[in-house]
Amino acid sequence: MTTESRPLWQPPLVPPLNQELEATMRARIDGKAKPPGSLGRIEDLAVQLGMIAHPAPPKADKAVLLVFAGDHGLTEEGVSQYPSAVTVAMVKTYLAGRASANAFAAAADVEIRVVDAGVAAELPAHPDLIGAKVRMGTANAAREPAMTMQQARDALAKGCALAIAEIAAGADIIALGEMGIGNTASSALLVHRLAPAPLDECIGIGAGQDDPGMARKHAAIAKAAARSNASSPLDVLREFGGLEIAMMAGAVLGAASKRRPVVIDGFISSAAALVAIRLCPDARDYCVLAHRSAEKGHDIVLAAFGAKPLLDLGLRLGEGTGALLAVPLLRAAARLVTDVADLSDVLAGNI
Amino acid sequence: MTTESRPLWQPPLVPPLNQELEATMRARIDGKAKPPGSLGRIEDLAVQLGMIAHPAPPKADKAVLLVFAGDHGLTEEGVSQYPSAVTVAMVKTYLAGRASANAFAAAADVEIRVVDAGVAAELPAHPDLIGAKVRMGTANAAREPAMTMQQARDALAKGCALAIAEIAAGADIIALGEMGIGNTASSALLVHRLAPAPLDECIGIGAGQDDPGMARKHAAIAKAAARSNASSPLDVLREFGGLEIAMMAGAVLGAASKRRPVVIDGFISSAAALVAIRLCPDARDYCVLAHRSAEKGHDIVLAAFGAKPLLDLGLRLGEGTGALLAVPLLRAAARLVTDVADLSDVLAGNI
Repeated sequence: MTTESRPLWQPPLVPPLNQELEATMRARIDGKAKPPGSLGRIEDLAVQLGMIAHPAPPKADKAVLLVFAGDHGLTEEGVSQYPSAVTVAMVKTYLAGRASANAFAAAADVEIRVVDAGVAAELPAHPDLIGAKVRMGTANAAREPAMTMQQARDALAKGCALAIAEIAAGADIIALGEMGIGNTASSALLVHRLAPAPLDECIGIGAGQDDPGMARKHAAIAKAAARSNASSPLDVLREFGGLEIAMMAGAVLGAASKRRPVVIDGFISSAAALVAIRLCPDARDYCVLAHRSAEKGHDIVLAAFGAKPLLDLGLRLGEGTGALLAVPLLRAAARLVTDVADLSDVLAGNI
Repeated sequence: MTTESRPLWQPPLVPPLNQELEATMRARIDGKAKPPGSLGRIEDLAVQLGMIAHPAPPKADKAVLLVFAGDHGLTEEGVSQYPSAVTVAMVKTYLAGRASANAFAAAADVEIRVVDAGVAAELPAHPDLIGAKVRMGTANAAREPAMTMQQARDALAKGCALAIAEIAAGADIIALGEMGIGNTASSALLVHRLAPAPLDECIGIGAGQDDPGMARKHAAIAKAAARSNASSPLDVLREFGGLEIAMMAGAVLGAASKRRPVVIDGFISSAAALVAIRLCPDARDYCVLAHRSAEKGHDIVLAAFGAKPLLDLGLRLGEGTGALLAVPLLRAAARLVTDVADLSDVLAGNI
């Protein structure tokens, strides 16, 4: 038996949005009982959600956060001040309901699923843990490809299938988050190649690094970049990882293929979404960029999306925390379309 | 019987926050299972909520939006492109659950109360309408004081009592919103005198005005300003109104007196909160400035508060829409304090 005998995973079909609907949706919102334009960016979001859902009305009630966890061989090079063991510890914290992602999910009434995309340890079974491990962490991308092409495709396929399954189970919107010590380093490499942008501009402090740590991080990332000149999305993913990032990219495509908005968190989630839209540009219009991360390099990804994020709160945690804070804005935008009366009816006394 | 025989309303006692708690709360949040500072402004908000609630843990589950409606005699001068009748029409729209405030409240799981602070019409009784009318709209402030001093005090007292009643009924946080054709003009006068700031810098387009409309608005406001040199908060309120603004100022003080956070919406709500903190400076620390309004003059009020708002979404509707979008951020901040494990416990495997 060889893995090569399996059919290759291909990106799902993502229906392009009908751009002619934009003017229709804008006119509908301008007719609501409020001064035109007075809800600012919520109106833009309402137009986007309306176009995605058309001809159905937009809906953002049931939101599910998928938190993908994976480890990175690059940590061998000292790119993070935290050891890989913290990835496992945080997965256990999510399952215990005691991490920031849990707190924010409870605050925003969002369901949370924890996915083992490639943690470098056997995790004890837990009813709330989705086992989707592709391998025990990536290889050290400074020395060799982070994963095989088959593993990259497997991770994409699993992320795609998970998003589709949540939508089949009733999710109106999918939000993405991640945990993986070393994954800002991996993301820097992805953004460098796929934005593209100069490498140094893509490297930030991640979970926090002192000057010697930053020197190690820069050196390791430069070493990885020098090892491969990959530039296509799948090659870049295989070379630089990570598994949780590949799975998030798959989830973006899965949500878009089912015409659901997908809420992108910070730097790492945006890097994953960048992989997705390079594979399938039509997926762009289904992405909602939740917030501007404090991580250096995020503005580069945002520019590649041509997006201005909704929130700017100085977050740089990941876990989907920023996406969770944006979910209520999507709900408000959807209800602006479905719940608010037309001004003509208000003035005519028809309410 | 004379109204003068009643005891004069006085601002309630607002307990000053113990500033020494700030470092304690900051240390507690720094000890959580996340890189220090990685939740940015949510951490600042968590510190504020922790200080307000101390020694109890912060809580932001049950939120109530009070929407105060009132009319303005200044509309006789053509300060708004909408007639006063729109205030009544919008009150009916709130009661029918069909306004933007209702949609956003449903999206954020916030209860909404509509208060007739001084609508210039008899409103039909409705189980969800709180009748607190002080008078049938203010007088035309360009010609005479908007209200009597007794009416100003009555409005403050009623707003204060309403906030206290909601807290007694279980509200963890109070959010403020308003509806009143002409109330950006009234607010411009309040901000001009209480920030203080040059009059022209306080005047914006409100619900939308063309050039001739803006000329009328500037002229009417200048006429009102020339009529009185009032500068104390109560005098300014009496001279320039409005009834809904006075009631919101009272609600700020009521919430602060009961040690609850109060979420301030946009330009008009901030002008009301400015009245409140000029009456009682200790109320400042209980205010959460929800968003940066697109209305000119709002930055002046924000500067007077020394506050950077949480959201910047180009809103300029009022009704509490911006406050409603900020409520989930308060909930996340409170749960960061109460729900998230300490890093030491995570690393020791105690989770």
